[in-house]
Formats: sequence, C-alpha cells, structure tokens
Amino acid sequence: MRVGNEDYQSIWTDSSDPHVVKVIDQRMLPFFFRTKELRSVDDVYEAIDNMTVRGAPLIGAAAAFGIYLATLEMTAATNVRDHIQNAARYLISCRPTAVNLSWAVNYSISKLSENMSPDSLQDQALKNAIEICEREKEYCRQIGVNGLKIIEDISEKKKGEPVNILTHCNAGWLATIDYGTVTAPVYRAHDKGIPLHIWVDETRPRNQGARLTAWELQQYGIPHTIITDNSGGHLMQKKVVDAVFVGSDRTTATGDVANKIGTYLKALAARDNEIPFYALFPSSTFDFSVRKGIDEIEIEERDPEEVIYVSGLDDGEIRQVRICPEGTKALNHAFDITPARLITGLITEKGICGAGEKEIKKMFPNKFK
Amino acid sequence: MRVGNEDYQSIWTDSSDPHVVKVIDQRMLPFFFRTKELRSVDDVYEAIDNMTVRGAPLIGAAAAFGIYLATLEMTAATNVRDHIQNAARYLISCRPTAVNLSWAVNYSISKLSENMSPDSLQDQALKNAIEICEREKEYCRQIGVNGLKIIEDISEKKKGEPVNILTHCNAGWLATIDYGTVTAPVYRAHDKGIPLHIWVDETRPRNQGARLTAWELQQYGIPHTIITDNSGGHLMQKKVVDAVFVGSDRTTATGDVANKIGTYLKALAARDNEIPFYALFPSSTFDFSVRKGIDEIEIEERDPEEVIYVSGLDDGEIRQVRICPEGTKALNHAFDITPARLITGLITEKGICGAGEKEIKKMFPNKFK
Repeated sequence: MRVGNEDYQSIWTDSSDPHVVKVIDQRMLPFFFRTKELRSVDDVYEAIDNMTVRGAPLIGAAAAFGIYLATLEMTAATNVRDHIQNAARYLISCRPTAVNLSWAVNYSISKLSENMSPDSLQDQALKNAIEICEREKEYCRQIGVNGLKIIEDISEKKKGEPVNILTHCNAGWLATIDYGTVTAPVYRAHDKGIPLHIWVDETRPRNQGARLTAWELQQYGIPHTIITDNSGGHLMQKKVVDAVFVGSDRTTATGDVANKIGTYLKALAARDNEIPFYALFPSSTFDFSVRKGIDEIEIEERDPEEVIYVSGLDDGEIRQVRICPEGTKALNHAFDITPARLITGLITEKGICGAGEKEIKKMFPNKFK
Repeated sequence: MRVGNEDYQSIWTDSSDPHVVKVIDQRMLPFFFRTKELRSVDDVYEAIDNMTVRGAPLIGAAAAFGIYLATLEMTAATNVRDHIQNAARYLISCRPTAVNLSWAVNYSISKLSENMSPDSLQDQALKNAIEICEREKEYCRQIGVNGLKIIEDISEKKKGEPVNILTHCNAGWLATIDYGTVTAPVYRAHDKGIPLHIWVDETRPRNQGARLTAWELQQYGIPHTIITDNSGGHLMQKKVVDAVFVGSDRTTATGDVANKIGTYLKALAARDNEIPFYALFPSSTFDFSVRKGIDEIEIEERDPEEVIYVSGLDDGEIRQVRICPEGTKALNHAFDITPARLITGLITEKGICGAGEKEIKKMFPNKFK
C-alpha cells in the first residue's frame, strides 16, 4: 500500500542484496516510518518477539523468511537436518497463539530436503517465503472482494449515510503482507466511492488500533475515529455501529476465533445489540486440529510492563509513562477467544461462511481428514 | 482512610479556617499526594470539571460545599435568591451524568431561605455540606456491611482460596467521602481476614483504576492486579473472577445503571459466564424520575484529548504522551448504561435488592410518588 508517494509491503527482499530481509519497524509507527533489516534467524526471532513485525499473516511470512536466513547460516560442517529443524522449533516457539507462524514454518521446511545442495536449499527457502507472501497477498485481495459484499449490502440500506464499521487492533496491511484482512474490503469499498467511517478501538496494551490502524486509514484517507476499548458497547447501544470486523490469529474447526484480547467483549456487545460481527482472515489461520478454543488454544502471556507503561510521543521522541503506582502487579494476556456462537460469519479468500463446523467443512472439504 | 500515618477523607474543612474547603488532588495520584484548597464557587466548579475531585458521591459533596462557598461571596447588595440559584445552576451544569451532583445541590438549597441573615445562611450551608458528607460516609459504611455478606458467601465456597473480585474505575474512598462503595465491603472483608484478590481494570481514558483503585488497595495492603479493560472477559472465561463489583453514577427506577464507560461490556461478560455482577452505591445515586437509562440519561462527552494523550509518570514528573497519529479524531463518552437485566443485585445502605422496579420500590417505598 502507499506510504506517502511510495508503494510498500510489510516485508520484502531487495533484489540488490537478497541476503537481507526488510520490514517496516511497527514499533516506531505512527510517529516515525523506519525500515529494519533482518539478516539472521535471531534477527527474525527478535523482530517477532519485540513486535517490530506483528499480525498473524505477517509473522507467518517473517518466519518463512527466517527459515531462508537459516539456510544462509550453514557451513560445510552443518548437519542440515538438525540446523533447519532447530531454526523451525526456535521460530515457532516465539509466539504461541497465532497458528500462521507454525503453519508457514512447517510449509517451508516441507519443501526442503537435506539432500539439496546449499545453493538450491537457499533458493528453495527463499522461493517458499516469497510464495507464502504472494499467496497471503492474493488471499487478502480475495477477502476484500468477498467482504465488499457485506459493506455494499449495509450501504444500500443506509441510503448514502456512511457505513460505520468498528474494528479492534490492527488487521490492516501492516498485519498481513498487503491489503490487510479487515481493511481489504474497507479499502475496496472506499475505492468504489462507498461512504465509510471506521471506529478504531485503541487496543490496549500496545495500542495497535490507535497507532497502526489509525495511521493506515489516515494514509488512505478513510474517515475514522479512535475510541477507548471501553466505548464500543455504548456506541452499539446508540446504534452508531453497523458491523464489527475483526481479524483472527487462530480459528478452530468449529469457528471459535482467537484474536487480540478484548475481541470477545465486542462480540458480546454486537450480539446484545443485534449487530453483525465478522472475522476476516486467510485460511492459513485455521487450525483444524482444535475444536474448543477456550480450552485448547494457548493464550500468550506477555510482559506486564506493557500494561504498566504506555508508550507514545512527547517532545518529538517516543517515551514511556508509568500509569499506576510503583510496584503494582499487572497481568497481560495478549488474546482471547470469541466463541463461534457470537460470530455472524467468517470471511476468507474462499467466501463467507457461518462460524460452524458444518459450514466450514463445506467450504474447506479437503482440510478435514 | 489511612494515607501513610494519617487519616483522610476525600474532602474536609479545616477548623482553623472554615472559609477554605480542602480536597485531595486526584489528578496527581498515585504519583504525588497533594491537597488543594477551594475558596470559591469557581474553584469548586473547576475542581469538578478538571477532575481534581471525581466520583459521584464526592462531586455531590463538593457541590454542596460549593453552595456554602457561594454564601461567603455575598455583599449587602446581593440578591440572595438569584445568587444562590445561579451558583446552583452553574454547579449542576458541570457534569451531567452523575445525579448526586444535582441531588446534593438541590438538597442544600432546599434548606436555605432568602430570609436568613448572612451569618445563618453561611452556617446552614456549611451544616448542609457536612451533613451530606456524614450521611454519605454512613451510607458507605452500611454498603460495606451489606456487601460483606456477598463476599463471605463466596469465600465459604472457595474454602480458603482468595475471592477474586473484578472492578472497573474507582468506586473507592476517593470517589466517596470515605470507605468507598465497591471498596467498603472489600476493606471490611480484608479486616475480617477473608483472603481477597482484586482485578483492577485500568479504565481508559483517565485510568482511574490503574491510578486510584490500585493506589487505594496498595495503601490498605489488599492483593490486586491491574489489567487492561480488554482483559476481563478472558479472565471470566477462565473462571478466575468470582464476582464483579462496580459503582454507579445514576441508577434508574427500573435498575439500569449509568457508570464509567466500559461497565456494560463487563456486565455482558459476567452474564455470559454466569458470574454475579453487583452495583454498589448510596441511595442518593437513584434517579427515580428515569425509567429507561439508554434513552433518557444524558451521557457526558468529554475532551477527545483524554483519549489521544495518556498521562503517567516519567523521569519524576507527570507527562502526557500522544498515542496516535497527529490529527487523529477521537470520541470520548465518559459513561455507559448497563441494563438492569444484566445486574445480579444492587447493594445500597438499605440492603441488597434485585435490579428491578418492583424490588427497588419495596426497598425504597417513599421515594416513589
């Protein structure tokens, strides 16, 4: 997508130096637009861990590039099999909730073989990462096509009034490779001239809504308003939300959605006010091995300091302020589970289906064994 | 309550100079403990408006002191009736949602008469304010007695495990005159040796939970953990919340509760997970003229900058950091309405009753005309 006058993806390799993977440093946004070079498996691990890159599809792609960078780190003495397996395990361990991470790593290593020459191993690993990027981009494009119908239907009923969509966290192009999941139909609707307004949850503790989604929408010229995470229920009661669109970090075979903490609260409010609630994600986000999200999906617990300190701009630099008494304990779960019963529909590259096992099976017949 | 080695109320007059009303400057907590002197109606208005004082019962008491300070501002030429009426209107206009403000002002002026001498007018107005304070204190003490039963019942079932109570915003002694509403039974249970743990919602945008409730609980030595406002639903799904206790800024004749924005989302999650949800407030918080909270209660809209900037401590001083791109629009509603159907019970000084017109009428028969 455009940033100023240039087109960007959230991750790419430079043809001038293919040994370097480049990403946008999302910790600096929206205050500074900086790119960062990743040159090793450690660099990739660190970038995922400290959230230089984040968003389920993007961390999958980044991890696939991590496997590629691992193939560059071998010498003649390296045991290829162990080396790649170790890199894979290491990368997967970084963040436990998003399934795209393990999916992308496993996909990439399934295409590698210890019998390959170092050169063809490297070529294949790079090809895999690029293939994953291209596939995810195409999936997001298709999510845009499929989600557009929902926006068009609402817009028709609103007779020229803007369609008000509430979103949580950032499921924009920064979280994917390009287009985004939640934002793909939003950008598409905007391009078609459909009037829109987005309610952007700030999304504590890391404020990806206020920082990243607001920045993306500002760059694209889409009207939006940031709100505290506490506000969505009230706005739904007041009938100024037409639909809720969220991403997913893992979707079960039964349609439960693991997404940024707080998503579940918005789903409850949407149900209570009869407002449609959609999860938008590429099918790489499905984990068909899981049936009951609340019991089976591991929820990442992050550093309590993300709750205790808030980061933002002051006097031209990014600073952190402490928002509670010294010594206060905090707990920081990164995701929650929205049960399928609260979800109106799942919007994937294949189309829109209900959040139930039967409908998911029908749309993805060969994923169930 | 104790602050260090001294006992404090949230508002008081000094016997050495009765023309001065003193309050704790809540904007400085938990970083600095500072008191502030209020010497005029304007001082009181400003203190309520900029949230030096906040919390429904406290702003009621502060406004009653405002009427007292108004009686000190008269000269021989003053039209007493107009002067008092103007002060009353002015103070009531300051914050529209909490009913205690208008209740306290109207109560105070109902006891004043234009025929009183200036001295007796001043004496009576001061008496009114002190009476309101004493009454609110006694109400909170009683709320503690009544709410304790709920905690004891849960504790019995938990066989020595801590009772986990989730609370939103600050309904502690800082929000009242003393004891608090939500905290009154919590302090009482702690004094009785019942093991407790409080989940403290940070309560964006102003973070009264992280700043004030955490500070109060820390001073009293009650185990607690701050969480983002997004987290409560997940914790309830994981069965680590035994009850939700919140305050109220206005309660309708039918049991709807206007409280800090985000309360409604916690009530939805409590219902979805079969966790009891109680509102604790003095009966001065009832507005028997209102039947349908969502349609009839005016929700205060505050400065968007409270959403755009987060305030906290950095390098020994209170600083504000901007958390979104420059020029981003924000919306800042201060309260929402929790419908009676989601509320397990109302805990007032009179006892515990269901959140329904019939049960409220039975407990407060002479408030309905």
